[in-house]
Amino acid sequence: MARGRTNPAMVTRLAGAERRTLPDKVVVEEPMTIRLDDHLVATTMRTPGNDFELAVGFLFTEGLLVGERVSEVRYCATGSAVDTNFNVVSVSTNGRAPTPEARLGATTSSCGICGSASIDDLAERLAPRPGRPMAFDLEVVAAVADKVRAEQEVFALTGSIHAAAAFDPVTAAVALVREDVGRHNAVDKVVGRLHLDARLPATELAMFVSGRISFEIVQKAWAAGFGLLVGVSGPTALAIDTAKRANLTLAGFLRGDSVNLYT
Amino acid sequence: MARGRTNPAMVTRLAGAERRTLPDKVVVEEPMTIRLDDHLVATTMRTPGNDFELAVGFLFTEGLLVGERVSEVRYCATGSAVDTNFNVVSVSTNGRAPTPEARLGATTSSCGICGSASIDDLAERLAPRPGRPMAFDLEVVAAVADKVRAEQEVFALTGSIHAAAAFDPVTAAVALVREDVGRHNAVDKVVGRLHLDARLPATELAMFVSGRISFEIVQKAWAAGFGLLVGVSGPTALAIDTAKRANLTLAGFLRGDSVNLYT
Repeated sequence: MARGRTNPAMVTRLAGAERRTLPDKVVVEEPMTIRLDDHLVATTMRTPGNDFELAVGFLFTEGLLVGERVSEVRYCATGSAVDTNFNVVSVSTNGRAPTPEARLGATTSSCGICGSASIDDLAERLAPRPGRPMAFDLEVVAAVADKVRAEQEVFALTGSIHAAAAFDPVTAAVALVREDVGRHNAVDKVVGRLHLDARLPATELAMFVSGRISFEIVQKAWAAGFGLLVGVSGPTALAIDTAKRANLTLAGFLRGDSVNLYT
Repeated sequence: MARGRTNPAMVTRLAGAERRTLPDKVVVEEPMTIRLDDHLVATTMRTPGNDFELAVGFLFTEGLLVGERVSEVRYCATGSAVDTNFNVVSVSTNGRAPTPEARLGATTSSCGICGSASIDDLAERLAPRPGRPMAFDLEVVAAVADKVRAEQEVFALTGSIHAAAAFDPVTAAVALVREDVGRHNAVDKVVGRLHLDARLPATELAMFVSGRISFEIVQKAWAAGFGLLVGVSGPTALAIDTAKRANLTLAGFLRGDSVNLYT
């Protein structure tokens, strides 16, 4: 790990009439720029750690790495090790990846944007997951949620960070857990690790997320080929529609002994 | 309200060995494109409702409306009312606002990005709030949190949406509450309403947010001139540093009877 994921902070705690100042830890948030074959693609605010996975996962879920092997991932260096900037990550495919389009330019078509069109855009590059929808047992996902919490190192220190995890929906084995201040980044880190390990599409795996399930989270799970997406909080209407189109089983509001199924 | 903020959905609830399918409501998430004087600025996934406030608040907190009076806000229309697209909002200053730069182009400087530079960028366009840091009583912010929850219409229906509110830190009076699937959008809606009502800078007001406090949330509170920002969850290290630079009182982990003070 190149950089710390938590920083010390002095905190004054007010409780009733009491007022105590004590040392605490807070989660780190730093910008990270992602480059692909020397094109700048995006800058995201993230918690340092697993930066290469984040870069690869982001590019993959945006459709910029499909079928392209990553030949190198590195931090931006301008000479000596001292000058290495740990907030700029370059992913190389030796020029085989498509040239990323500027987002601002890509969305200039006026008066025609809507959620169903967003799903149509995804469906142009992503096929629905083949086969029957993935089934699951409540006991399994409840056990996974407990395991993920136990592995959340930064959450344990700060009480304030999201997690995503890949798990086996049959055995409840947790393949990996990643944390980030941003929900989407935590998911990208999981997807990036799986892509670097040549484990995508993740057709036999399920994804767990600690927060709400937005369109963007379903997009990422679909791109990576997961069969099931389960979250601690609820999905949006657009997330449900997208999951249906993807043949992705979607569950939310996971509590110790209950869960809601949306697809 | 032009569009619904919740959609009906059939949900299968698994609880123990029970399995029941019942009608539920889920929060709506739809893309919205923001234009300024006919330049495309951004597309954000948001919960419909208060769209004009969202557009104005976003542009204001991005520094694109400072000192510029908004002369008109409208949905994109191509002729008849039937063709009006409620997902594209145009804000007009009659050409007085600066031309927005493409984000991708604006961040091409390689190998030099970091959080403290992000704060420096903000400090170039935003002055620290003048005067002494805003003080507050725990009873007041706890009461505000209760009031906001009571006013959260969509949260009551779906259990899954963020809220932001502006309140008076002396009287605990809640000036306005806005909800959105995105934390940053909820804050933008509050700031946009205050800007449209010519109530910015909000030097005597405080901002409440239902979630975590990231750099971006502090940026928006600073741009709007709030004296206090209080959240139900914790701040990031960069959020704390930014709040210190802004002379903005920052409190987090607000529970019924306690809160943490970070500045």
